[in-house]
Amino acid sequence: MKFNIALLAGDGIGPEVINEAVKVSDAIAKKFNHEITWTPALTGACAIDAVGVPYPDETHEVCMKADAVLFGAIGHPKYDNDPSAPVRPEQGLLLMRKKLGLFANVRPTFTFPSLIDNSPLKRERIEGTDLVFLRELTGGIYFGEKGRKDNGDTAFDNCVYTRAEVQRLAKKGFELAMTRNKKLCCVDKANVLETSRLWRETVQAMEKDYPEVTVSYEFVDAVAMRLVQWPNSYDVLITENLFGDILTDEASVISGSMGLMPSASVGEHTSLYEPIHGSYPQATGLNIANPLATILSAAMMFEDAFGLKAEADAIRAVVNKSLEQGVVTEDLAPKGSKAYKTSEVGDWLVANL
Amino acid sequence: MKFNIALLAGDGIGPEVINEAVKVSDAIAKKFNHEITWTPALTGACAIDAVGVPYPDETHEVCMKADAVLFGAIGHPKYDNDPSAPVRPEQGLLLMRKKLGLFANVRPTFTFPSLIDNSPLKRERIEGTDLVFLRELTGGIYFGEKGRKDNGDTAFDNCVYTRAEVQRLAKKGFELAMTRNKKLCCVDKANVLETSRLWRETVQAMEKDYPEVTVSYEFVDAVAMRLVQWPNSYDVLITENLFGDILTDEASVISGSMGLMPSASVGEHTSLYEPIHGSYPQATGLNIANPLATILSAAMMFEDAFGLKAEADAIRAVVNKSLEQGVVTEDLAPKGSKAYKTSEVGDWLVANL
Ligand SMILES: CC(C)[C@H](C(=O)O)[C@@H](O)C(=O)O
Ligand SMILES: CC(C)[C@H](C(=O)O)[C@@H](O)C(=O)O
Repeated sequence: MKFNIALLAGDGIGPEVINEAVKVSDAIAKKFNHEITWTPALTGACAIDAVGVPYPDETHEVCMKADAVLFGAIGHPKYDNDPSAPVRPEQGLLLMRKKLGLFANVRPTFTFPSLIDNSPLKRERIEGTDLVFLRELTGGIYFGEKGRKDNGDTAFDNCVYTRAEVQRLAKKGFELAMTRNKKLCCVDKANVLETSRLWRETVQAMEKDYPEVTVSYEFVDAVAMRLVQWPNSYDVLITENLFGDILTDEASVISGSMGLMPSASVGEHTSLYEPIHGSYPQATGLNIANPLATILSAAMMFEDAFGLKAEADAIRAVVNKSLEQGVVTEDLAPKGSKAYKTSEVGDWLVANL
Repeated sequence: MKFNIALLAGDGIGPEVINEAVKVSDAIAKKFNHEITWTPALTGACAIDAVGVPYPDETHEVCMKADAVLFGAIGHPKYDNDPSAPVRPEQGLLLMRKKLGLFANVRPTFTFPSLIDNSPLKRERIEGTDLVFLRELTGGIYFGEKGRKDNGDTAFDNCVYTRAEVQRLAKKGFELAMTRNKKLCCVDKANVLETSRLWRETVQAMEKDYPEVTVSYEFVDAVAMRLVQWPNSYDVLITENLFGDILTDEASVISGSMGLMPSASVGEHTSLYEPIHGSYPQATGLNIANPLATILSAAMMFEDAFGLKAEADAIRAVVNKSLEQGVVTEDLAPKGSKAYKTSEVGDWLVANL
């Protein structure tokens, strides 16, 4: 098969981890007789520096034409302490999600046996954890009307959802649950919010179409607790944009493998794959960042965007092997043992595929 | 001194745990020569059953006349699966907060040495944890305009904050930090929300009035992670209503002592003290619920509402003693050892004061 992949390396360590994901993807393509064309494009702080906006039209065109998008990370410290600067990298992210129609953010949380003791949680609490959040990504309070009144002394953000938006996200949730343990948890705050009541009634009305799926409804505050207490009690969770932002990040630390967690954002026009970690500016250019989350995101791309499960499994298998054999970057290397460089990890994976 | 305390037992185990807090408070009052008049009033599901509304006007009058309010818990399973029922216990809670002007919810999280191993987190992660959230309680998306359009197919919830609302909450945060470790963390989502940018700029402008306080600004998703990773890195955290709802519940499970965590809601007209746990309907009437969170809430009341620190410390000391000696309800009793009844714990505390 032939693929055209948009390559958005972004800022900070983005280019370094993307580089390794490209190496591994190319090696997999070669092994399985596929042909990948990579088309790089600018986004984030580097795009602001180059052309003045964080998600240029040319980048959008590249993404629209591609079969999938592989994304690194964006963000630069010069924007950190000024969230009201007129142009910021995050705006590019939000614009990209909206323009590409990436309405569902898929965030798995699972454990790696060899890393389980890195978790802040006790082993017995997290063993067997294998859950997936579907976070709605193009609606809610992120995209509602926002602004100021009263000479700037009153601020507002409007949270809006339509039934159709909830349905398309929930449909993905039900379908995903059918391929897994058939448990779906709808996370809302229906005891307070009208948008949550719309979510709940919409999901309730869809239950009859998926009689095999066991659906539960939990309040966001209760889920914030239970994620820490019993993460392995969940299977698929669906939720709105802001709750998803908070809960997926919370979930990512429980496995002890945050630096390894991949994600996908799927939607109307294309799909995008990215590590959940940020641009880690302090490590930029040092060749020390862990590339595995990006490489595992590429594996998700092979499986979900191209339907190539064997290719995805081959990537996951060699990643597991590298972890078992201690071929890891400094964030995972036990004290006193050798830490590999970012590029060395990539090279080792390619050599061992 | 003489105090008039409104007693809102509420639903489920509320009356049982309130009963023990009254016993212990009366014993403390006797010992220190105070006189307490308790005025019971209805709220929650029991108020709906009795008079059709969850926060009756008579109850509001009782609270307004009182020096403080001691609150149990509200909620009944018959409302659980129907968050759009026309009358619900939670509405009473929100109305009460608004009418009493309880704009700051004070939620400490700390560890008890004897309970630390109950935590889902590893001991070394939580040792020394002693943080306090100040959650804004009468504004934000809880109280903004909400409703439906397009024949019910579009729902909206408006989040609104004024500079004055942020200032009065932040002022409490700075003042509290001054009495503690002088660290204040403002939790927001200023990279996305206009209300958060108002929060951040308002707090930034107040920094100069508290030069000794070290202020940090963190995004809500980052805090959801760091609370699990390094809870003991925080001191005082201030945040808006919905973020506070989620994060305070998340924080409550890290100490391993959720069943013991007290809280206060302070404001314009009076202050209210309540355990953070819910009405635990399954345990109603069984005399097995843990009364310590309510008793420790009474201790907060003595210290913060009446300025009686010795009385508060005496309550805390005897609670610690009960934990050390294993005089605990079944939720804390190690397997195979005797569990005390709710009322037996109260009796023991009174006898050992
Ligand atoms: C950078 C920020 C706008 C973004 C979000 O809140 O969606 C990030 O936290 C994420 O989760 O991808
Ligand atoms: C019951 C509910 C309305 C309430 C809230 O969200 O404020 C509760 O979760 C709390 O935190 O006291």
